[in-house]
Amino acid sequence: AAVGLVVSVGIPSAVAFAAVQRRLWRNLLTLGVITLGVVIAAWIGSTVFVLRPVTALVRATHRLQAGDLAAARTELPQGQGELAQLASAFGEMAEALGQREAERKRAEVTLQLLSRRLLEAQENERRAIARELHDELGQSLQAIKINLQTAQRYPQEGATRLAESLKVVDQTIQQVRTLSVDLRPSLLDDLGLVAALEWYIDRQAQHVGFDGQFLATPPDLRLDPTVEIVCFRVVQEALTNIARHTQARRVRVALQQHAEELHLVIHDDGVGFDVPAAQERVLQGESFGLLSMRERVELAGGDFAITSSPTQGTEIRVRFPLHAAPRLDPPSFAAAHTATA
Amino acid sequence: AAVGLVVSVGIPSAVAFAAVQRRLWRNLLTLGVITLGVVIAAWIGSTVFVLRPVTALVRATHRLQAGDLAAARTELPQGQGELAQLASAFGEMAEALGQREAERKRAEVTLQLLSRRLLEAQENERRAIARELHDELGQSLQAIKINLQTAQRYPQEGATRLAESLKVVDQTIQQVRTLSVDLRPSLLDDLGLVAALEWYIDRQAQHVGFDGQFLATPPDLRLDPTVEIVCFRVVQEALTNIARHTQARRVRVALQQHAEELHLVIHDDGVGFDVPAAQERVLQGESFGLLSMRERVELAGGDFAITSSPTQGTEIRVRFPLHAAPRLDPPSFAAAHTATA
Repeated sequence: AAVGLVVSVGIPSAVAFAAVQRRLWRNLLTLGVITLGVVIAAWIGSTVFVLRPVTALVRATHRLQAGDLAAARTELPQGQGELAQLASAFGEMAEALGQREAERKRAEVTLQLLSRRLLEAQENERRAIARELHDELGQSLQAIKINLQTAQRYPQEGATRLAESLKVVDQTIQQVRTLSVDLRPSLLDDLGLVAALEWYIDRQAQHVGFDGQFLATPPDLRLDPTVEIVCFRVVQEALTNIARHTQARRVRVALQQHAEELHLVIHDDGVGFDVPAAQERVLQGESFGLLSMRERVELAGGDFAITSSPTQGTEIRVRFPLHAAPRLDPPSFAAAHTATA
Repeated sequence: AAVGLVVSVGIPSAVAFAAVQRRLWRNLLTLGVITLGVVIAAWIGSTVFVLRPVTALVRATHRLQAGDLAAARTELPQGQGELAQLASAFGEMAEALGQREAERKRAEVTLQLLSRRLLEAQENERRAIARELHDELGQSLQAIKINLQTAQRYPQEGATRLAESLKVVDQTIQQVRTLSVDLRPSLLDDLGLVAALEWYIDRQAQHVGFDGQFLATPPDLRLDPTVEIVCFRVVQEALTNIARHTQARRVRVALQQHAEELHLVIHDDGVGFDVPAAQERVLQGESFGLLSMRERVELAGGDFAITSSPTQGTEIRVRFPLHAAPRLDPPSFAAAHTATA
């Protein structure tokens, strides 16, 4: 029964696993191809979605650094993804920075314009005063001199000449007084803003022929000298404008202390004007009076507002914080003045 | 010989491939774990190296947009990678923007300071002229008036009184002339800058006691009125400073036309001063004269430079482009002046 037969069945493993190996290799190859594809895709993706926008942002950053806002914005990457948020934030920032810069530029131009106009106005004022002194006062004094010399030479005419000279002297005293008061009413330094405004508004009302009202509360208000002179100059400028352009019949000026604030309101019932148009003209170099009023007030720490329309008259409102107004040391200015005058 | 034996050897494929399957599963598991690891690493990596820096950059952008430079810089992401380049560019940009803003702020403060000082200087000048008119001229005229009234009343004293009055009238004429000329030498308007400087430098040299030299090339130079008045004021301010502070013995003033430029040089051999320290003081509100000279020149389109040292005297150099100087229309200023004077 024992056949004694041993059958050894051998399949070489190469043959036995051939199919498996083939499948494995195929799988590995497929995997390799996929991996390569993924790597390439990742590379392209990172280039398109990360590197390219990042490079674009770097360029935009450099442009912005150089102050070239418009170019910076065209450099900004388009598209979606995490970086789009950054790009959009960057764009908003560039816009905000640009706006701030434009505002600052405008403010700078206005200030430069103002400084130039102030220098010009000062030169014009000096020239006008110098002329008035030389021509008007000089002439009057020459007339007195000739009169007196004649009186010396011809004593028989003495009485007439003396009388005439006295008349001219009185006129000259009046000229000097007017010139002096127009430059700086001594009332302002001696008795303060309320007294000076009372006198000035009254004088202008009589002179120009409008009905002028002035109310101060409290009536014994005394203020910082800087604020007093600014308020006086604003009223002076406003009344000059009213006399020149508005044909107003009634002018009301109110100076009121409200808690910690000073309010100055000047109202007229004249023809009014187009405020935005006038403000446009300020930047074009016209309406210097308006710019001058506003800047005087703002440089002294106050607010200035003007409302007007062609039929509603004009209202100027000035507001000063009463205890925070910056004070400038007068001595150095006195020195500065002496240096140039 | 035909054994007729068929041996069918069957290994269940499960058994036959068990080892292979196990290896495949193990491989797949390992691959899975590696893939998971790579995904996690990529996620962490993108968060750490991309998302987090991008978010930080967005925050920095928002801060910068709000004008908060210091905070924007602390928000900037640290580290390496593509985004580090962006972050570093961003940091540089923030710094450049900050510097530009600081410079502009400084320029604005200087301009504001100047405008305020100009207004104050103008007020001080007005007050000083008003006082001089009222006190000096007013007094002289009152004296003449009393003299003449006395002469009328007591004819026997007439001759003496007349002679006295004439003396006072002559003094008053001289007062008016000096005041007028100090405000604005009529030479400047009538004969131009060269004649005005010749006269003024000569007057100051005699008055202060230095050796004054003035050279103009060409001697018949005529310039834009704006440039002429600015040059005159610069010389006036410089000579006032020299008289006050320098103990100079020699002062040389040169006005030269070089091709398309006008050069004005004022040199003294006095004690000199520390220019940087003086410029510091300008921003603190002192040295108004220096600021005023510089700004006058720059607002009229020129360059201003000053060099000095405590032992080398002082040199002021002013340069104007001759055909590009901005002209301002005088009529509107004349109007502006009348409005405030």
